[in-house]
Amino acid sequence: MKQKKFMLPESEIPTAWYNVQADMPNKPYLPLNPATGEPLKAEDMYAIFPEECARQELNRTDRFIPIPEAVREKYSSYRCTPLVRAYGLEEALGTPAHIYFKNESVSPAGSHKLNSALAQAYYAKQEGTTNITTETGAGQWGGALSYAAKAFGLELAVYMVKISYEQKPYRRSIMQTFGANVTPSPSMSTRAGKDIITYDPNNQGSLGTAISEALELARTTPHCKYVLGSVLNHVCLHQTVIGLEAEKQMELAGEYPDIVIGCFGGGSNFSGISLPFLRHNFFDGKKTRFIAAEPSSCPKLTKGVYLYDFGDVAGYTPKLAMYTLGHNFRPANIHAGGLRYHGSGSIVAQLLKDGFIEAVDIDQLDSFKAGTLFARTEGIIPAPESCHAIAATVKEALECKKTGEKKTILFNLSGHGLVDMSAYDQYIAGDLVNYTVTEKDVLENLAKSDLDPSKAL
Amino acid sequence: MKQKKFMLPESEIPTAWYNVQADMPNKPYLPLNPATGEPLKAEDMYAIFPEECARQELNRTDRFIPIPEAVREKYSSYRCTPLVRAYGLEEALGTPAHIYFKNESVSPAGSHKLNSALAQAYYAKQEGTTNITTETGAGQWGGALSYAAKAFGLELAVYMVKISYEQKPYRRSIMQTFGANVTPSPSMSTRAGKDIITYDPNNQGSLGTAISEALELARTTPHCKYVLGSVLNHVCLHQTVIGLEAEKQMELAGEYPDIVIGCFGGGSNFSGISLPFLRHNFFDGKKTRFIAAEPSSCPKLTKGVYLYDFGDVAGYTPKLAMYTLGHNFRPANIHAGGLRYHGSGSIVAQLLKDGFIEAVDIDQLDSFKAGTLFARTEGIIPAPESCHAIAATVKEALECKKTGEKKTILFNLSGHGLVDMSAYDQYIAGDLVNYTVTEKDVLENLAKSDLDPSKAL
Repeated sequence: MKQKKFMLPESEIPTAWYNVQADMPNKPYLPLNPATGEPLKAEDMYAIFPEECARQELNRTDRFIPIPEAVREKYSSYRCTPLVRAYGLEEALGTPAHIYFKNESVSPAGSHKLNSALAQAYYAKQEGTTNITTETGAGQWGGALSYAAKAFGLELAVYMVKISYEQKPYRRSIMQTFGANVTPSPSMSTRAGKDIITYDPNNQGSLGTAISEALELARTTPHCKYVLGSVLNHVCLHQTVIGLEAEKQMELAGEYPDIVIGCFGGGSNFSGISLPFLRHNFFDGKKTRFIAAEPSSCPKLTKGVYLYDFGDVAGYTPKLAMYTLGHNFRPANIHAGGLRYHGSGSIVAQLLKDGFIEAVDIDQLDSFKAGTLFARTEGIIPAPESCHAIAATVKEALECKKTGEKKTILFNLSGHGLVDMSAYDQYIAGDLVNYTVTEKDVLENLAKSDLDPSKAL
Repeated sequence: MKQKKFMLPESEIPTAWYNVQADMPNKPYLPLNPATGEPLKAEDMYAIFPEECARQELNRTDRFIPIPEAVREKYSSYRCTPLVRAYGLEEALGTPAHIYFKNESVSPAGSHKLNSALAQAYYAKQEGTTNITTETGAGQWGGALSYAAKAFGLELAVYMVKISYEQKPYRRSIMQTFGANVTPSPSMSTRAGKDIITYDPNNQGSLGTAISEALELARTTPHCKYVLGSVLNHVCLHQTVIGLEAEKQMELAGEYPDIVIGCFGGGSNFSGISLPFLRHNFFDGKKTRFIAAEPSSCPKLTKGVYLYDFGDVAGYTPKLAMYTLGHNFRPANIHAGGLRYHGSGSIVAQLLKDGFIEAVDIDQLDSFKAGTLFARTEGIIPAPESCHAIAATVKEALECKKTGEKKTILFNLSGHGLVDMSAYDQYIAGDLVNYTVTEKDVLENLAKSDLDPSKAL
């Protein structure tokens, strides 16, 4: 019998995260204080973030950062996750490529998001915080953090993008079952929310708006910190457990990836699977390609501009160096809610600029076509976000079929789609369409966001 | 770090199922031809079931039945499943008991049902069948079989209990995403369905009715076989992979269960976790208790009568020896749809009669209370069915707290509840109630089903 899964015992759960900042030839740009234009120090962020997260955000010296034992203990309920050889998909495609996926969908929250949720909740608790707050789009991050908060005894308030709150009641229920308090955003509970509702009473919300609301709650509430599920450096750091495990598992499989693929929203799962392998490009002469797969409807990496921009709509965050579509970009209502964010994190942005990674944009219909093929050949219904990584994988595998090359492709199955079945329903019924953002759309939106593309970094 | 999960490599996937029939001191009663009252032979069932399944149904001699290599290969996409120590639940209960659960929720279909679906689909394909048909209540079985049918290249038609079809659209979508054809039952596509709709146009369906429809389709369609997800001996047989793995994993944990618990609908998951351990009660002097946890609203084991009854509403099946509430029993619309069946399988019935196993009934509110506690302490939201096993586990663990006994309790987490979040929603909102079936209700319903309790076996 051919080996299907490559497993590691929980004793092999990594003891440290990989901090790529220490190894990057060009370091990521620092976050700026929007008032002064000065780079932020960790202390400047202590009021908002757990302090250890703020320090990790700016750590450019330590290649490895130890994972607290209490976090590893919580990881052990689902890690190490399986590395799986996708024989069924390979056969259906008739490709000579070897396709592997890292299966983060086995996490109890159904996605990779728990890897950072547990770390952030742990640090918050250690530092005496009693309450945390966050935003969530599709609800994967909110669900993961709800369990993490409960696991470490914290109260959690989640601002959930209104359209998701209404379209994804199961995600809301998951958060509530874990004990979190969930509010649809924009809400009347914050000034940022009120301002938006005043101007646009039917506003359906966005991640950028929900971030503004959560940040405002954290700033105005004692003992309350803000945590988030993607974009920032420390979140990408926590997700490197994915790639660190995958490295050892590829070794068990006797292969090394020629191509590593992750879907791309803010960067957390893409960074998680990619960065640990990237260091072997830096140091060990490997030539692995890293492909970030983003939706054509929110194409910051492929069509955005590398600028300092706000991370949220209200402009509460520091200015971050990102490939951005402009902080007031309003993405189409695609089902891959986790990919509907206007900018990329600073680490990924610099790596893209420096040519260490690539990006590809995927149409919504292509993503579901690939996801459905994956479901029928591998048995797992992927999250709409993960479908983008699968579509990029299919494309590369079919290229191999053309050229006859037997490449080894590894992608991250960031989550399952069991709570997103209405999306598949609509796909099967033929009710979904593609949304394509053009260069012209991007320029118009940058202008509306007071951004000047000629100032690209 | 305390070890949380006890894992086995896929090379340890069992090579044979355990057939308890070979070891039972009193064999299960044989199915009867309702017209002649004569016991059925395997050949009598070939027209309906895959032939190998019919032979397994009546096999009382072979203690182990080999698992085909092609089935083991499909198992390898998710097996061996983890055995997990529930430290979080133990701590929350303050119990000296050690609680373990076998986590079948990591199956791609989200429950244990795939274990038998793959086997039945394989045999059907091997024997030249092109189409299979089945019924599904909550949709766990239908979802699993949809993938299994696709995996072995079969067309599948599913009759889904109408109320579930409407209340659980995600389950329907899962089946359709895997490529199955799903019809709400009762339907106008069969005589059985038409008869029911004629008599009761608003009939919301039941498993018994859906079985009638699927059976009728199989009997009237060439190259089409009927398969089902519980009750029958061969289904319980296929599920023994659960307990066979758990045996080895408990050994890794250095313990042996004093109590084994499974929720109970028709018997498949309860048998799966229990029967392999039961043989050590038969032969090795073990004194493990086996507890089947059923809903108070459908209490066939605790309040039903041991009789020959039909497996379906229309009376198409052979007569089966079961603890039954009467084949026309209409269960309350509890959320544990998989447990809403009027009778127990013949193996479990005989084991209960002979005192080898016990049964306990669980109120709906107690089941969700236990399930929510489990979610918050272990991170996994359990299926409403599995909540019954958890509630029985909590009861035993609290008994240990009283007596100070450090018992080892093992339960089967048959599935996750991510596709059942509307049930948790209603529980959290306080909208759920208990339904209790009394002895008097049972007697009335037996009379309506033309059954005479004085003829108990």
